[in-house]
Amino acid sequence: MNTAPATEIKEDPIYKLNRDYLLNFTTDAARRIEAMRSSEALDVLEEQPAHVLARVFERLNPGAADNLLKQLPEAVATELLKTIDIRSGSALLSRCPQERREALLARMDKGIAKEYASLLEYPEDSAGRIMQPHVVAFNQSVTVDAAISQIKRRKVSSLHHLLLLDDNLRLVGSVDIQRIALADGHETLASLSSPVKAVVQSLDPREDVVAKMEKHRVDAIPVVDMDNRILGVIEGQNLIDALRENLASDMQTMVGASKDERALSSSVFAVKRRHPWLQINLLTAFLAAAVVGAFEGIITKYTALAILLPIAAGQSGNAGAQALAVTMRGLTLREISMRHWLRVMLKECGAGLLNGLGIAITCSAGIYLWSRSFGLALVMALAMIVSMTIAGVSGAVVPILLKRFGMDPAQSSSIVLTTVTDIAGFMSFLGIATLLSPLLEAG
Amino acid sequence: MNTAPATEIKEDPIYKLNRDYLLNFTTDAARRIEAMRSSEALDVLEEQPAHVLARVFERLNPGAADNLLKQLPEAVATELLKTIDIRSGSALLSRCPQERREALLARMDKGIAKEYASLLEYPEDSAGRIMQPHVVAFNQSVTVDAAISQIKRRKVSSLHHLLLLDDNLRLVGSVDIQRIALADGHETLASLSSPVKAVVQSLDPREDVVAKMEKHRVDAIPVVDMDNRILGVIEGQNLIDALRENLASDMQTMVGASKDERALSSSVFAVKRRHPWLQINLLTAFLAAAVVGAFEGIITKYTALAILLPIAAGQSGNAGAQALAVTMRGLTLREISMRHWLRVMLKECGAGLLNGLGIAITCSAGIYLWSRSFGLALVMALAMIVSMTIAGVSGAVVPILLKRFGMDPAQSSSIVLTTVTDIAGFMSFLGIATLLSPLLEAG
Repeated sequence: MNTAPATEIKEDPIYKLNRDYLLNFTTDAARRIEAMRSSEALDVLEEQPAHVLARVFERLNPGAADNLLKQLPEAVATELLKTIDIRSGSALLSRCPQERREALLARMDKGIAKEYASLLEYPEDSAGRIMQPHVVAFNQSVTVDAAISQIKRRKVSSLHHLLLLDDNLRLVGSVDIQRIALADGHETLASLSSPVKAVVQSLDPREDVVAKMEKHRVDAIPVVDMDNRILGVIEGQNLIDALRENLASDMQTMVGASKDERALSSSVFAVKRRHPWLQINLLTAFLAAAVVGAFEGIITKYTALAILLPIAAGQSGNAGAQALAVTMRGLTLREISMRHWLRVMLKECGAGLLNGLGIAITCSAGIYLWSRSFGLALVMALAMIVSMTIAGVSGAVVPILLKRFGMDPAQSSSIVLTTVTDIAGFMSFLGIATLLSPLLEAG
Repeated sequence: MNTAPATEIKEDPIYKLNRDYLLNFTTDAARRIEAMRSSEALDVLEEQPAHVLARVFERLNPGAADNLLKQLPEAVATELLKTIDIRSGSALLSRCPQERREALLARMDKGIAKEYASLLEYPEDSAGRIMQPHVVAFNQSVTVDAAISQIKRRKVSSLHHLLLLDDNLRLVGSVDIQRIALADGHETLASLSSPVKAVVQSLDPREDVVAKMEKHRVDAIPVVDMDNRILGVIEGQNLIDALRENLASDMQTMVGASKDERALSSSVFAVKRRHPWLQINLLTAFLAAAVVGAFEGIITKYTALAILLPIAAGQSGNAGAQALAVTMRGLTLREISMRHWLRVMLKECGAGLLNGLGIAITCSAGIYLWSRSFGLALVMALAMIVSMTIAGVSGAVVPILLKRFGMDPAQSSSIVLTTVTDIAGFMSFLGIATLLSPLLEAG
């Protein structure tokens, strides 16, 4: 069996001394390496065996570690990643440029490469996919001056917070860059630290990121792994994009299309996600048809009723959709909560009634002109008032009820509502027609 | 006529010397006053006549000016505001805490108070309403050290950019706070300046703010008046809130409710905004009814057709709404643009066809079970395939066409679409029934 280490150990006393220091005072050594120019740091590290490198990299702050990993010879970097604890290694790799990452994975044994790949695979729309992997993080014991000189060297382009880590690279706090600008140079970062209000894990879905951002009203969220090791940050445009996508996809869930469908997704993908809801919609359509069927007698007698059915259902459907959209917006923006249900309902009841009255006038006038039947016009007028009021109330109540029962109020609320408004429209129109059928006779 | 100044001029030589300096070297004096503690600055300014104060305040950076205005005796502040150029004055007042502003306005003559009030009245959802009036702005000739010591004194809580002004308080650039942290103390802010990519005026609507933010991908937008004088900044949570409200209100415009309606707006307000679209919807519903009316003959013969009408329209309506939501999201998030119209249309055509096939199977099975009529089941199956394909294509085409013709694709796209899908549903179902009526006979 060949047990010789892949990297040959130089027995030059300086390297030996360095190695002893790196192994026995790793935390201290890590701070010193972070403060070096990267060429100096590479000189110190390049010839060290992988197990020493692994110890050091488990202590280096992400910025310095990322920078050095990029510059280590591929062979050395691969050995390091094979030796280092796999979760520290995957944090390193996840922040690595894609090309470099692939080159390093290609050099590893299949087994370990596969293990890394599975840790690095963030699902679509997960926090890991939207995060920015270039983070600026420092050990909390570093002084302001040391941090500033490291930031200057790294030429970071836009920076609002520094993340603070403990000796095990766990996230322990953050410092607003403005506090750095105003602080004395010899203060430690720890003394300026504020707690991190919200973090997400790399596999958390985008909705959770947005929900935490909204709950804690922060404009940057660090992404960590299970051990609270920093993987990246979601902030600025990335966060804004996440928010926009999240809100825009609410429109999709309302009609039973899934959040992850995009305008240019394939037809097959679209069908897979939308079809189940269309089948459910079919069931509800049968229900609406059954309502019409219950009035078969009067329809057979007055075909005009069948012709006017689209108007009855269409107007209440639209009035309901308006009430739904406004209520959904209120829930989404937290302008209203559950306890406002009565106020919202009364408002929509009033709006439905007033809109119903207005539509009743023009609609029945139109019908009278067309049919010259006073009875038919009256039936439609009454049906409009009743069904549009019901539709308004339903538009407010459906999403509030969905939320009350712990469901996403966006999820298919539009499908549920259409059923309600269809049935309300048909039932009020045909029901009133049945009640007033003597008037239809006269018409 | 009484021309004596309201503030008595002390003829003490020191005040006179100060006054000469303030009047003749105003820009220079303003820089010095900004650098003073506010008690010192007040000592210098308090006893000066209003026209001198006005000259100086027209040159002071907003932070310093706001701070001093707050501490000046009310009588002096009122005189200052009466004397200063009204637009400089309204910029000062708009950044003033509300209570203080009202107290100062109450002390002025009605005429000038009214003029100020009209300049300060930002309409709902305008940039002026959502901006944060506490800005950190400096003359561009100030050094980094001087800026830092002023920021330290003012205890600003969260700060990402410094705005840079010329001697006339016009916005000329901005400096990222991180560049301040890394710069040498003696550099001028001008040497660190980057151009301001986007500004808005205080009366610009929220949509413009969001559009500029998206176009320039910035996370802070200064609000200026017509003379490019800074009134405030929209950034962080204010910007995010603007974005969210803007997106959420898209849902409302799709169904013809206005952007400015909130869940708790009054019923009357809701009716005013929604009713016109309901009347338009009524017209389109008459159109759909006319289509059904054209098939009166066959409906009279087979009442079952009337009963099944809700299914024909309901399914195509829902399929269309799904296509619309996904396409709208693509347009809103700029995932697609006009040139993708063919790809999107083909995708939705494919999705509509496949969904139509699936629904045709279950739907015709259901109808056969209910009616035992093979003909009726076949008619519905064919109608589903045709109408759901048309609905899918329309859902993609309607918003793209609205945008093509320079309209807001959100505006009432849902109302337009419902008309199309209703007519497609009725026409295909009743049309195919007419063509295949011998089969219905047999059923």
